Amino acid sequence: MDKIEHIGIAVKDLEASNALFEKLLGVPHYKTEEVASEGVRTSFFKSGPNKIELLEATKPDSPIAKYLDKKGEGIHHIAFSVEDIVTEIERLKAEGFVVLNETPKKGADNKLVAFLHPKGTNGVLVELCQEIKES
Amino acid sequence: MDKIEHIGIAVKDLEASNALFEKLLGVPHYKTEEVASEGVRTSFFKSGPNKIELLEATKPDSPIAKYLDKKGEGIHHIAFSVEDIVTEIERLKAEGFVVLNETPKKGADNKLVAFLHPKGTNGVLVELCQEIKES
Repeated sequence: MDKIEHIGIAVKDLEASNALFEKLLGVPHYKTEEVASEGVRTSFFKSGPNKIELLEATKPDSPIAKYLDKKGEGIHHIAFSVEDIVTEIERLKAEGFVVLNETPKKGADNKLVAFLHPKGTNGVLVELCQEIKES
Repeated sequence: MDKIEHIGIAVKDLEASNALFEKLLGVPHYKTEEVASEGVRTSFFKSGPNKIELLEATKPDSPIAKYLDKKGEGIHHIAFSVEDIVTEIERLKAEGFVVLNETPKKGADNKLVAFLHPKGTNGVLVELCQEIKES
């Protein structure tokens, strides 16, 4: 766990929230990316060594749509960057955490990602993410 | 807004959560601090340039106790570090954000802090924090 890579925030209207977070953070978002497999459209802001990721649902049965229905807008997850996601998954499983993606999946922003079950982490949805290196 | 200074996580049992987050982050907490005026006991972990702050209520009418009653354990706020909190409060008010503490107050970890109303920030409780410099 090297640092907080990003904080994911669930929003209803990505364009409106892009304008809002530009005012809040004092910088514009630097990219928008859709992850069709997750039913989500994301935008990213830099905050020093960290990022803020806004997440808008693109279909009604996506995880973000369900989250918005249940809890409304707000902080959805914390992502920590890791050097080697496979090793980190093994370490966390051995410590008793429930890993939702035993095989990491491709996420936004050129990352391999895996999530931990929030029931084992005081209600916090934790994402591990590792930069995908070109081989 | 220089970077994410810390993420605040509301927990029911600080000792149990200290052990859990030590396993998660791979490092022990490095300090515990009570903020009597807020009815909260906190512990801090380092995660690279960022921190994780665990928050346990010390009295039943404190903000963290009310949060736990209403929402349960989980991510409570994002804190951004700022160089000059008074200037940043003025900037954010001019942008239309509702600042809950127009005069910054003393928080944990030798910081002056102020919060923004989450209704104006997509449901996210945002804290500004500035290191208190010895004069």
